[in-house]
Amino acid sequence: MKKYGFGVDVGGTTCKIGLFETTGVLVEKWEIPTDVSDNGKNILDNVAAALKGKMAEKQIQAQDVQGIGIGIPGPVDAKGDVAVCVNLGWGHVCVAKDLSEKMDGMLVKAGNDANVAALGEMWQGGGKGYEDVVMVTLGTGVGGGIIVGGKVVAGAHGAGGEIGHLTMNPHEAESCGCGRKGCLEQYASATGLVRLAKQALSKEHAATMLDQIPEVTAKDVFDAYKEGDAVAAEVVGKFAAVLGRGLSKISCVVDPQIYVIGGGVSKAGQPLLDAVKKAYQEEAFSSCKVTEFALAILGNDAGMYGCVQLILE
Amino acid sequence: MKKYGFGVDVGGTTCKIGLFETTGVLVEKWEIPTDVSDNGKNILDNVAAALKGKMAEKQIQAQDVQGIGIGIPGPVDAKGDVAVCVNLGWGHVCVAKDLSEKMDGMLVKAGNDANVAALGEMWQGGGKGYEDVVMVTLGTGVGGGIIVGGKVVAGAHGAGGEIGHLTMNPHEAESCGCGRKGCLEQYASATGLVRLAKQALSKEHAATMLDQIPEVTAKDVFDAYKEGDAVAAEVVGKFAAVLGRGLSKISCVVDPQIYVIGGGVSKAGQPLLDAVKKAYQEEAFSSCKVTEFALAILGNDAGMYGCVQLILE
Repeated sequence: MKKYGFGVDVGGTTCKIGLFETTGVLVEKWEIPTDVSDNGKNILDNVAAALKGKMAEKQIQAQDVQGIGIGIPGPVDAKGDVAVCVNLGWGHVCVAKDLSEKMDGMLVKAGNDANVAALGEMWQGGGKGYEDVVMVTLGTGVGGGIIVGGKVVAGAHGAGGEIGHLTMNPHEAESCGCGRKGCLEQYASATGLVRLAKQALSKEHAATMLDQIPEVTAKDVFDAYKEGDAVAAEVVGKFAAVLGRGLSKISCVVDPQIYVIGGGVSKAGQPLLDAVKKAYQEEAFSSCKVTEFALAILGNDAGMYGCVQLILE
Repeated sequence: MKKYGFGVDVGGTTCKIGLFETTGVLVEKWEIPTDVSDNGKNILDNVAAALKGKMAEKQIQAQDVQGIGIGIPGPVDAKGDVAVCVNLGWGHVCVAKDLSEKMDGMLVKAGNDANVAALGEMWQGGGKGYEDVVMVTLGTGVGGGIIVGGKVVAGAHGAGGEIGHLTMNPHEAESCGCGRKGCLEQYASATGLVRLAKQALSKEHAATMLDQIPEVTAKDVFDAYKEGDAVAAEVVGKFAAVLGRGLSKISCVVDPQIYVIGGGVSKAGQPLLDAVKKAYQEEAFSSCKVTEFALAILGNDAGMYGCVQLILE
């Protein structure tokens, strides 16, 4: 294994780039803007220029670089090709091949951003030391990354880990963003938590500090929960119950060693983790009750880490 | 790759043994009784004697045998060890290692019987040509085998593919065999189908040929369904809807290329497959609506085939 590797997490606004030692040490990270003009045709050139510039600055030779991993906000096939990526303005782009050519033949692997974030948490984050990991990202929606034997399960149609769209409640009246009804992310995301809070506040309810807040956010609900607020406890309990039930279904399919919980909502920390784990254990199939739970720890850097993990396989 | 391989599917009553060409051709199959006396201590000796006898009879040399795959009715770890197998009377047995020693060092791999059946259907059955396959076995219960990239997902606690215990209805009043309530197999197994039929017959219902049958079986329901019986159509519709919904959840986790439906209930054939596929497509996440469906074709030989597939990796 060579000494260095680069991780490049391409987002719609910026590309997060990390220079790593392949032992797992992040040497330096920085960002460059993502130029989505002209159907994003400059993105890979800009990435290559940034990497070459950093190598020159640090006097790193190509023969000391294991390779480059790159994460893309959309489906990526096993060869590292993208069919279409709306966020970057891309049609079909052979990401791995093109970037490798721009980097004089250096090894390049490409992956979906949610999946590389899961790999990052497995490599150096909340799932370190495990190889059967399910990463659960609780943000505006609910994302997932399924890792079996150290490899991402991308799925035959790019839907591996689309756990936010597990149907939890066929009787739900409101629609999910996907057009179906009763999806996990209608309850277990930041948006879902706020929706549950509004439902609770619109009915007769106990005294609550949430009544003082004009536009309740997910953070408000967790803050109130930590203060022992009764309505917040009811809302978080419902949130955790649905999420725990959802994860218990995942265990009946891939039975991971550990669930790693990340995303903005996971900033609620240990109280959230405890509530979800408790709900999970009540629901889980007997042999899966011992599945472990951890918080993600790499935050927005997870993708960068996971990109490097891609080239270590 | 050497010319021959053996597949040994060990059951509680008999061991099904197959001599295969490693190209996938079944040369000969036969059975020996499974001797569960004395905590099953003779089982592997008997298997070894049977294999050596067949090699002598066919004048097959050890150097022409790729190896032996063996399926066990219980959890088997990655090394081929069994911690306990109630059906065989076994405590801890190093199956792969022990059988290899009895066979003069021949390559032996061991796997769980449900998982090797899935591998068999992938190799030479309904899932031939695919490598991301979910095998669904509809028998007394509902079993599953999850294959990703040609490898079985056994799970960290042996619960990979325990799809019969996906919770489908948290409001179910009756208990599943696992002690929980609302599991997939309470609806989508032979037992589940009969239960749904009894429920339909106990309520006010349309004229039905099922009323003439003292103890309705799953086969009776499907026979009546094929004849256009209204009550049978209602029951099969409910069965298919729950199964389709269950499979749509699996697609949000591992997103296979194909579902292969086997087990006794699958003898109902194409009408069953069509009903399940229709229900699945109504429920599935958009990119997974195109997932393929096929009937299993190897029947009780699937395990033997899959055992051989184990040694081809």
